[in-house]
Amino acid sequence: MRVHNFAAGPATMPLPVLERAQSELTDWGGLGMSVMEVSHRSKDFVAVAEGAEGLLRELMGIPEGYQVLFLQGGATGQFSAIPQNLAAEGATVDLVNTGSWSAKAIAEATKHAQVQVVADEADSGYSTVPTEGSLASTPGAAYLHYTPNETIGGVEFGYVPDVEAPLVADMSSTIMSRPIDVSKFGLIYAGAQKNLGPAGLCVVIVRDDLVGHARPTTPSIWDYAQMAKAGSMLNTPPTVGWYLLGLTLEWVKDTGGLSAMGERNRAKAEMLYAAIDASPFYANPVAKEARSWMNVPFLVADPSLEKEFVSAAATAGLTNLEGHRSVGGMRASIYNAMPTEGVQALIDFMKEFERQHA
Amino acid sequence: MRVHNFAAGPATMPLPVLERAQSELTDWGGLGMSVMEVSHRSKDFVAVAEGAEGLLRELMGIPEGYQVLFLQGGATGQFSAIPQNLAAEGATVDLVNTGSWSAKAIAEATKHAQVQVVADEADSGYSTVPTEGSLASTPGAAYLHYTPNETIGGVEFGYVPDVEAPLVADMSSTIMSRPIDVSKFGLIYAGAQKNLGPAGLCVVIVRDDLVGHARPTTPSIWDYAQMAKAGSMLNTPPTVGWYLLGLTLEWVKDTGGLSAMGERNRAKAEMLYAAIDASPFYANPVAKEARSWMNVPFLVADPSLEKEFVSAAATAGLTNLEGHRSVGGMRASIYNAMPTEGVQALIDFMKEFERQHA
Repeated sequence: MRVHNFAAGPATMPLPVLERAQSELTDWGGLGMSVMEVSHRSKDFVAVAEGAEGLLRELMGIPEGYQVLFLQGGATGQFSAIPQNLAAEGATVDLVNTGSWSAKAIAEATKHAQVQVVADEADSGYSTVPTEGSLASTPGAAYLHYTPNETIGGVEFGYVPDVEAPLVADMSSTIMSRPIDVSKFGLIYAGAQKNLGPAGLCVVIVRDDLVGHARPTTPSIWDYAQMAKAGSMLNTPPTVGWYLLGLTLEWVKDTGGLSAMGERNRAKAEMLYAAIDASPFYANPVAKEARSWMNVPFLVADPSLEKEFVSAAATAGLTNLEGHRSVGGMRASIYNAMPTEGVQALIDFMKEFERQHA
Repeated sequence: MRVHNFAAGPATMPLPVLERAQSELTDWGGLGMSVMEVSHRSKDFVAVAEGAEGLLRELMGIPEGYQVLFLQGGATGQFSAIPQNLAAEGATVDLVNTGSWSAKAIAEATKHAQVQVVADEADSGYSTVPTEGSLASTPGAAYLHYTPNETIGGVEFGYVPDVEAPLVADMSSTIMSRPIDVSKFGLIYAGAQKNLGPAGLCVVIVRDDLVGHARPTTPSIWDYAQMAKAGSMLNTPPTVGWYLLGLTLEWVKDTGGLSAMGERNRAKAEMLYAAIDASPFYANPVAKEARSWMNVPFLVADPSLEKEFVSAAATAGLTNLEGHRSVGGMRASIYNAMPTEGVQALIDFMKEFERQHA
């Protein structure tokens, strides 16, 4: 029996995607082979790869003039690849610090460029994001990097910063959660393991003028120009992940595309935050205007009840609700594939747990 | 119906592995989730990860004093990571050129170190490997890198070079094909997509004294010391690939381990080369002492018959026999998961094709 899985990533995937993959795992498309057993350069797999790219372009409304790359090494790999591709030796790059993932991006960029932390929410305990209009890039900065949604802290930008430098966004935990205007960005990247498929693939959407400037020491597999020219197949890509990403995009399309997805996600988040706010027993530590639609951390008044909450929830079929090991508490990740009924079941469970323990 | 799939990689996988994965794709271990949907840090997945490492150590007889890492970016990523981890800025590294993959490793190493090509088989048309005893490392070289098996050319070292410098081997297309003495190597690496599982994971086996010297600009996900400390989970690993690698290793163990595997592979290769050599219609371009057990390229006397051969073979359920686009002809990749019956079926087909066309 399937549970409602609130894991932060790798995260729950749409059941129709898993069932489709299951049905053809030993014989894909009548070829007598699994999709994992065919050459990435075969016409059958190239159709999968191009189909996924086309669907991503269609669903996200990616305009002309952007490359879409499917790379290995995750977002953490891109923390290294981005400065090597976008910033010349010695150049200044701007980064915004709103939590754990921002901080990791900053640490890695520091190896390759002069990092300016142009805004830092550490003093707030990472409970909010910079006010709209307050961000500005350093004159001459190669780019400004931010993390629209922090998976661990559960803080999210409710706006897209408007700055001089090309805007770079780590959308690992928010991509495809609603419509966005891609033209405002120089580069968007996202590890697949939250809203796009299984772990092992990182999508990079990059504007043409930012491609072709990689430093000579950049690893070839992260050189955007080389990878764009090779259709992301300079070397063997993680074909099974690419295939599952394609199936996931088909599911997004079948369920109404990003407008419908955004409405469902907004409603799911509002339900859950309303339940938390209505109770003296639960609390969410994030400023209201910066609350994430995807990752909802919450606390109980008595922290000694946390373990019992997580364990009783799991018994009730609501799994992986423990907070990140670095912050504790609880966290419900409610990505695209989490149905409204799952969120409702969590709210019902929370009410019952409160009734028993308050 | 399953075919006999002679693809060079991604390559055929053991059917029991695929069937096991299929059976638990929506509900793994009774958790109500796919293995792709659980946290890499959960105890359930950590058991998969550690189990795979333990089995690899057991089957390959990896001695104490070696780290086993599961990394992203493929062997091509390691072409960049190895000099950054093993060679100081400005140091000399030795590389042996025996074909396409050697040449790519050389090109990438040149970005990071002073490359000495200590042996080069280009003049032979990459039809052989250096004679045993002829290789020597440059005094002071950080390591000597070679490619024990060239997937495209189908040439293979029948011996392990004995040199002063630490020996580094790209075993992507030969790992686990027979027993080897790991203690002769400083570093062994292999993309998974031939003998270990699906594409998207690269195994690195590295001796402790070579760990901990990464240059400060090395991407964290390829810093061997950081990754060793983090159990290869500095960032989210490709969990589905790691899981399938574990199942593949279980299958290797169930079928008798590497001694039995080596005997089967030797017999498969001998059958196929004997059939080629016995016929005036087919030819293998590789020196006999350097013939690969894994990748068997062959030509027909009349190249205009190549397309017909490949197409008729596919109709007969023997697929992906076209040679690499860079060399043409035909190629049968007969990795661990290719059963003896598959090789026999190919030989039977070749005889019948010859009878019809000679």
